[in-house]
Amino acid sequence: MRSVTKDNITEIFMGYVSADADPRVREVMGSLVRHLHDFARETNLTHEEWRAGIAFLEGCAAIETEERHEFVLASDVLGLSSLVDMLHSSPEATSSSVLGPFHVSGAPPLAYGGDMKRHYGGPVLLAEGTIRDTNGDPIPGATLDIWQTAPNGLYASQDQDQDTYSFHGLMTVGQDGRYAFTTVKPVEYTVPSDGPVGDILRACGRHPWRPSHLHFIVEAPGFKPLVTEIFPDDDPYLDEDTVFGVRSDLVMTYVEKPAADFPDGMALSGTLTEPFLHVDFDVVLGRQA
Amino acid sequence: MRSVTKDNITEIFMGYVSADADPRVREVMGSLVRHLHDFARETNLTHEEWRAGIAFLEGCAAIETEERHEFVLASDVLGLSSLVDMLHSSPEATSSSVLGPFHVSGAPPLAYGGDMKRHYGGPVLLAEGTIRDTNGDPIPGATLDIWQTAPNGLYASQDQDQDTYSFHGLMTVGQDGRYAFTTVKPVEYTVPSDGPVGDILRACGRHPWRPSHLHFIVEAPGFKPLVTEIFPDDDPYLDEDTVFGVRSDLVMTYVEKPAADFPDGMALSGTLTEPFLHVDFDVVLGRQA
Repeated sequence: MRSVTKDNITEIFMGYVSADADPRVREVMGSLVRHLHDFARETNLTHEEWRAGIAFLEGCAAIETEERHEFVLASDVLGLSSLVDMLHSSPEATSSSVLGPFHVSGAPPLAYGGDMKRHYGGPVLLAEGTIRDTNGDPIPGATLDIWQTAPNGLYASQDQDQDTYSFHGLMTVGQDGRYAFTTVKPVEYTVPSDGPVGDILRACGRHPWRPSHLHFIVEAPGFKPLVTEIFPDDDPYLDEDTVFGVRSDLVMTYVEKPAADFPDGMALSGTLTEPFLHVDFDVVLGRQA
Repeated sequence: MRSVTKDNITEIFMGYVSADADPRVREVMGSLVRHLHDFARETNLTHEEWRAGIAFLEGCAAIETEERHEFVLASDVLGLSSLVDMLHSSPEATSSSVLGPFHVSGAPPLAYGGDMKRHYGGPVLLAEGTIRDTNGDPIPGATLDIWQTAPNGLYASQDQDQDTYSFHGLMTVGQDGRYAFTTVKPVEYTVPSDGPVGDILRACGRHPWRPSHLHFIVEAPGFKPLVTEIFPDDDPYLDEDTVFGVRSDLVMTYVEKPAADFPDGMALSGTLTEPFLHVDFDVVLGRQA
């Protein structure tokens, strides 16, 4: 008769997995369970700590909605989301970064030179650049799905004062692969910390801040879709993004320019009187395998 | 500027944990995240697999109720619950085993010799034994909280045809430390497999069966409370309990005896005409540290 012990339970688990199971299921479940068991053995995990872990999962479950994705947030602050991104980045392409829970499908078209700032206050940012392949050639017809928070640090889906697609836009580039739009300079903000994930951050003495950033999803036929974010180099949280999103090639510099240098042909309403910030950031897509 | 990479993200996580954090939080979270990251790196976990993991957690969340504890079940079938039990078993005491999700607090008193079988059909089991300390001496006044399924394989909380405390009883032993009660021979049963945990079992080619067992929680002042189960040695699932609960010292033998050998002084109603099963199983408690 087989007796389960703390030393043979991992092997017994693997014995339970059928020889007919999908080999990848066997590999992933085997690795997951081996690490889970090693974690418990290494820490001599107590019943009280196990109950705290179950209570954490049940607490996430209790607040999970279509708008609040606490399990994704947990994966984000533990670095798992970023790690999976980095494992599958193309080395010659722009790095990917976390999607986050605030992307909204179906953003309205934003023409070249279009404006996302509208009536909102705050410094004007003119962002432009070229969508390129790894040879440096422009990718005509690539789409750039752009989103960010309003100046209050909230995404449209978090903020009843914004409409659904506030600070969201979908730009399709022309033959030259160029994009350009105006917006408000993004602000740093906190991830939601009023749930179980916030309790973990507090227990670890961690803050919930993310450095300011613009989110992009860049897609073109024949190329690997890229989910990424770009960060200004002067952000105070650049070295301590609570969701581990910063990669060196995603860091950009805002250059302050006089109002007189603002280019013609942009949709920004009104006449600029203050200096504006300018960034030119190229995005490189890798080809589909 | 710090760039997060797949190789330094674990170290960066540890750098985020404050020096002022509780040392045990640091140890447990550090081990958890190191194993989580190693799991992702070893398996080269894909975005699709990550999404499947999030969907698993969200699927558990969607069916979690006061009566359905899918996260506990997940821990059970992955062997984590049993492993935590075994890490904290007293070597000289009876082994602990999984509590499971079906214990109900406040079971009604069951006198020595009491009956849990009532009107239910099935083979009569007479279970008796002594609650002892590690020197072999009886523990007067120890309590034995007993629960099991009805003959249909369902616990009271799963079955609208049973009342709340059906097949639950709380016995307090006398000076001799003896317990004795009659019941129906327990049956093997399946853990709930109509949720996300069932999907995992099927993907692994695993069955959802548990060998038949009686659940006990044994408590006495000055002793470590014991949560355990006992299993008959002829059960077909003894070597493949889907929640890893079997320990060699928890396996017992049912001895079939003629009706004429049934002892006097038991509460079982009616007159026995068929043979009954008998087991004598002592429970050993370790002293509180």
